[in-house]
Amino acid sequence: MESRNILRFLAISLSVSLVLFFTWVHLPYAPQPNTTTDLLYCSTNSPWCTSKNRFQPINKPSTADNILEKPPNPKHHNHESDTPHHPLDPLTISEINRVRTILKSHALFRSSSPFAFHSVVLEEPDKTLVLQWKKGDSLLPRKAAVVARVAGKSHLLTVDITTGEVAVQETGSRSGYPTMTIEDMTSSTWAPLSNADFNRTIIERGVDLQDLACLPISLGWFGESEENRRLIKEVVEISDKGKGIPIPKAANTDYRYSAQKINPEMMFVNPISIEQPKGPSFTVEDEHLVKWANWEFHLKPDPRAGVIVSRAKVRDPDSGEMRNVMYKGFTSELFVPYMDPTDAWYFKTYMDAGEYGFGLQAMPLDPLNDCPRNAYYMDGVFAAGDGTPYVRSHMVCVFERYAGDIGWRHSESPITGMEIREVRPKVTLVVRMAASVANYDYIVDWEFQTDGLIRIKVGLSGILMVKGTSYVNTNQVPGQQNLYGTLLSENVIGVIHDHYITFYLDMDVDGSDNSFVEVNIKKQKTPPGESPRRSYLKAIRNVAKTEKDAQIQFKLYDPSEFHVVNPMKRTRVGNPVGYKVVPAGTAASLLDHDDPPQKRGAFTNNQIWVTPYNRSEQWAGGLFVYQSQGEDTLAVWSERDRPIENKDIVLWYTLGFHHVPCQEDFPIMPTVSSSFDLKPVNFFESNPILRIPPNVEKDLPVCKPAASA
Amino acid sequence: MESRNILRFLAISLSVSLVLFFTWVHLPYAPQPNTTTDLLYCSTNSPWCTSKNRFQPINKPSTADNILEKPPNPKHHNHESDTPHHPLDPLTISEINRVRTILKSHALFRSSSPFAFHSVVLEEPDKTLVLQWKKGDSLLPRKAAVVARVAGKSHLLTVDITTGEVAVQETGSRSGYPTMTIEDMTSSTWAPLSNADFNRTIIERGVDLQDLACLPISLGWFGESEENRRLIKEVVEISDKGKGIPIPKAANTDYRYSAQKINPEMMFVNPISIEQPKGPSFTVEDEHLVKWANWEFHLKPDPRAGVIVSRAKVRDPDSGEMRNVMYKGFTSELFVPYMDPTDAWYFKTYMDAGEYGFGLQAMPLDPLNDCPRNAYYMDGVFAAGDGTPYVRSHMVCVFERYAGDIGWRHSESPITGMEIREVRPKVTLVVRMAASVANYDYIVDWEFQTDGLIRIKVGLSGILMVKGTSYVNTNQVPGQQNLYGTLLSENVIGVIHDHYITFYLDMDVDGSDNSFVEVNIKKQKTPPGESPRRSYLKAIRNVAKTEKDAQIQFKLYDPSEFHVVNPMKRTRVGNPVGYKVVPAGTAASLLDHDDPPQKRGAFTNNQIWVTPYNRSEQWAGGLFVYQSQGEDTLAVWSERDRPIENKDIVLWYTLGFHHVPCQEDFPIMPTVSSSFDLKPVNFFESNPILRIPPNVEKDLPVCKPAASA
Repeated sequence: MESRNILRFLAISLSVSLVLFFTWVHLPYAPQPNTTTDLLYCSTNSPWCTSKNRFQPINKPSTADNILEKPPNPKHHNHESDTPHHPLDPLTISEINRVRTILKSHALFRSSSPFAFHSVVLEEPDKTLVLQWKKGDSLLPRKAAVVARVAGKSHLLTVDITTGEVAVQETGSRSGYPTMTIEDMTSSTWAPLSNADFNRTIIERGVDLQDLACLPISLGWFGESEENRRLIKEVVEISDKGKGIPIPKAANTDYRYSAQKINPEMMFVNPISIEQPKGPSFTVEDEHLVKWANWEFHLKPDPRAGVIVSRAKVRDPDSGEMRNVMYKGFTSELFVPYMDPTDAWYFKTYMDAGEYGFGLQAMPLDPLNDCPRNAYYMDGVFAAGDGTPYVRSHMVCVFERYAGDIGWRHSESPITGMEIREVRPKVTLVVRMAASVANYDYIVDWEFQTDGLIRIKVGLSGILMVKGTSYVNTNQVPGQQNLYGTLLSENVIGVIHDHYITFYLDMDVDGSDNSFVEVNIKKQKTPPGESPRRSYLKAIRNVAKTEKDAQIQFKLYDPSEFHVVNPMKRTRVGNPVGYKVVPAGTAASLLDHDDPPQKRGAFTNNQIWVTPYNRSEQWAGGLFVYQSQGEDTLAVWSERDRPIENKDIVLWYTLGFHHVPCQEDFPIMPTVSSSFDLKPVNFFESNPILRIPPNVEKDLPVCKPAASA
Repeated sequence: MESRNILRFLAISLSVSLVLFFTWVHLPYAPQPNTTTDLLYCSTNSPWCTSKNRFQPINKPSTADNILEKPPNPKHHNHESDTPHHPLDPLTISEINRVRTILKSHALFRSSSPFAFHSVVLEEPDKTLVLQWKKGDSLLPRKAAVVARVAGKSHLLTVDITTGEVAVQETGSRSGYPTMTIEDMTSSTWAPLSNADFNRTIIERGVDLQDLACLPISLGWFGESEENRRLIKEVVEISDKGKGIPIPKAANTDYRYSAQKINPEMMFVNPISIEQPKGPSFTVEDEHLVKWANWEFHLKPDPRAGVIVSRAKVRDPDSGEMRNVMYKGFTSELFVPYMDPTDAWYFKTYMDAGEYGFGLQAMPLDPLNDCPRNAYYMDGVFAAGDGTPYVRSHMVCVFERYAGDIGWRHSESPITGMEIREVRPKVTLVVRMAASVANYDYIVDWEFQTDGLIRIKVGLSGILMVKGTSYVNTNQVPGQQNLYGTLLSENVIGVIHDHYITFYLDMDVDGSDNSFVEVNIKKQKTPPGESPRRSYLKAIRNVAKTEKDAQIQFKLYDPSEFHVVNPMKRTRVGNPVGYKVVPAGTAASLLDHDDPPQKRGAFTNNQIWVTPYNRSEQWAGGLFVYQSQGEDTLAVWSERDRPIENKDIVLWYTLGFHHVPCQEDFPIMPTVSSSFDLKPVNFFESNPILRIPPNVEKDLPVCKPAASA
């Protein structure tokens, strides 16, 4: 057992290094020549000693960060003079600096003990105050919520930016540690290399240390031996197994376009683009308030959640008023268990938001490829481990989407003699980010439709986490099912895994107090002789009284709709106004509920949960997820079974994927997506998009090929 | 019971007439003034007597059809000189004329008995011959498959177009009748109006006959009393119920753009368009062979299936060869049971392909709205009831789609120090049709991706079939769950219903002989002490030996992948090459298996079936569906449990929707879509799209707003 922990602790496994080896071995670096032996003692040879992990442990990851981020757009926004305009606006550069200054003089940080800031974000004002606030009102008091580690202890602090007051909150007896800082991650990629014994295990495999890369792999939690110590940044023990496994070849694994040989038989497509010569139709007021068509919402990057959508309101087509739909929505947690119980793999059960920071891993988007032309790019302003602010440029994009789809249509049949053919193109607004959590890339879209629907879509791309094997062909494998995955190439296995992405959705349908209604679609038998039909389906409404009524597992043969309604507000003909959550393709976690990873990921035990609003319950896997034991998850909160009828409630939705890799996923995976919808259900009096005009030729752009322009 | 049959036979129910009444009442017709009394005796006052159903029974619906079809594009293709180039090309105008001439002199049609052609389509040559055929070879003998009714009997004929030979096939003891002709449909909208008693029931409701429209509603099958007579075109009995139910008001039900009052507060979007200034990248050779990027397939309109995609092949990125994926794919049948067991509703259990002709109902597409700019439009050439050819213009469109989505991406994390960010935009090719089966509009997309994936998507839009009620508010309703639907507006109920769309997919993965493999994802428990993990998931492959092994119902908590593999062909590392069917959101039929509609729609009892290829088994609900009893369905064929391992097999997939209407669906429904994918799984040696280039600014079009152009 002990050696297993250490292996994880090292955050290095041969399989991991190999996938990186594939992709990095041909990079145009010119490391200084060194003999293999020299490299055994890396500490004297840094920074090159870390080879592909070129950074030494540094105090200012913001610098490292900035190196990488040449803003793709030259008109780069200067954030130094940013000021907040809305109570939910994220902390600005000057506010983060002010927090740092305040804390420097606080007792906790005045000692010589080492400290690090794991999170410095806006402490959002009370929901009631935000709901009352209107543009033009004076801004609510600005506060920062800080998570810091000082002298080996975690602290939760609230810093009043105006008064300088610091409130220290009780962290309680929580297990687990805060999200890793970028410094934690870079250090842990460097730490193993400073250990000569470790380096020897690499060289003995015939791998040049210069071709090695280490990754900071979170280690889950597997029992008492791992408790009460934060395992990171230091080699405790080395496990050296699988030496006989050959190193897979790098051939055909470089995925960069510049490395491709282009087959002349391959037919390419002519330039194609979403064009808006009059520009996009949305505006972004005061940096964060997005207004488009009948929608308005507040949007901000967040280091843990990625993006946060707040105060989403839609215009009623009849009254013209803006009506509340959702107070706040974001990616609360991810859970990615791999399905290999053996030594180097069993612990790979990532929780990317709480362990790595889903927003911290969101790299700058690539204009014209990640987002179409005319996209608006929003930067993130985050704090480094030492509290200094830095800019993650082009982290989020906002764009209008026209995909050739049909919003609604109807043609009359010729038998009626009516010459009616009414068709409306579907144009939507998309908010997108892409987090590259080590090998995997998650693309998260919030798509707003003019009919009031919000589609939340997650795409998976990037690189598979692969495993070494001695096999080069499946005909050598006695029990192929025991490979824990698929042989993707000679000596390379793609290991089976799941992805779960859990969304926090604080629905406020026409007000904060809502109810959750399961509309069960149930077969009814007709009494004999009453109808030629023997059966039909009925929709039976069940209002959830307490949390356990709303712990939902989907069943194809016992289907339901899931409504969040405002029981105090009805349509003209008396239906309660509501929004429903509409699932699409998804997967459910099948792991044992008492399996340690599933205890931590217990928020995936249901596809839907509903909890009463509680500002301390935002992170489905708990506030401190790294090495957590699962006693602070959504599943635990929901077991309290609090009343949820006609209350301010939060809906939690988990989108899942099973991934049995195939050769097409190697060396890079085509995007796989799924989504779910928040859809008005008797929210509007009637179809809200009748007034959307059709396209006509004379309004469309006039375009020329680039060359002839 | 008897009066129920008649009510259905009349194909008129108050609820139906009302929905049409809503939408038609304000149309700019100027019917000749007539007194109400005059109109009671319609036969003397045609054509206006039928009011909104303006056509008399006619012999040439092609005329009626042509009236409606002003080709949207002035450069309308003249089909009179069309000649076939490919063995699967549909019958041309001259071929249909030739068939008609041949049959006129055939014994069956020489008598004075009335006859009608219910289907005149290409009799496709044997699959083996088509597979051997190459461009440049002489065309295979051209034959027509004809379904005709003569003197009250159905006949299946094969007509050799060259030799003039006519073979009469045995229709067997099948129940049911052929697909309605357009003449059947128009006549049955007219027939009730020629009955004074019927007209009196309308007038007694205070409805002006000029505001009435009738629809030809298929009647299902509910027992012996309905057997052995084709119920259509003639009033047998009148059921007159629900007189007290008020007529809903027409206010706010006209969905046409010209009828909308535009709210100035409503913000509209600037022009947005998918632009390709160098034109689209696909070609359509010889009218039907579509070539795009790495794809090639044969495409044709079909009166029953809508569109048929044949001989779909994808280019291997390594060898450059075109590899077979699918021999033939199409919408085989639809099943739309309504969930109201009462008098006027229980029989509404439509099978739109077999009863109405899914292609016959596909109206011309609206350029710029149904399909984006640069779309290519394909016309259908069909035969009318008298055997004359007519053109259904712009029935199918083909276009390239760029939706701002990401084909694949990967950014390196800053901790690695690697400046890598590779992103590829996703461009696809879409084949679209939209069938308006009376009130509902079905949009069917076949979307081809460069990574080898085919997405088959169905969108539902159009008008709800609604029901009258005396209620104007839900607070008047004692048991709301007994409404069989939702109160949408005063006196209007949207009745709960399901939609099932069943696809025929003759997969030929690298050859005709394939196997179906269920890859079951199963929880495994680890033996105590072997791993800190207690459980993980394993992929267990089960090859289906016979048909019953492949009768699949999806289970979220017992999930599987579904592969069609070529067991004789393996990748370099030994995986069988395959395609998998990947479900997304769907619904299952919950009706009793012994309910008469479900017997007829028994092909929806499973989501997946696999049968051995049999050219007579193409229509999941049977060849003759109208009034059929369900003894010729996919469910019956599959019960034979024939061997399917390493055989030429056909995969059947059913996409389902439960629809509990809501106010947003009235008076017109925003499109609701779902889809499933056919996706390569170890078909390619590795990711097939590495060579797709990224977008760069200099290649993109240069566009101006229309006004300034």
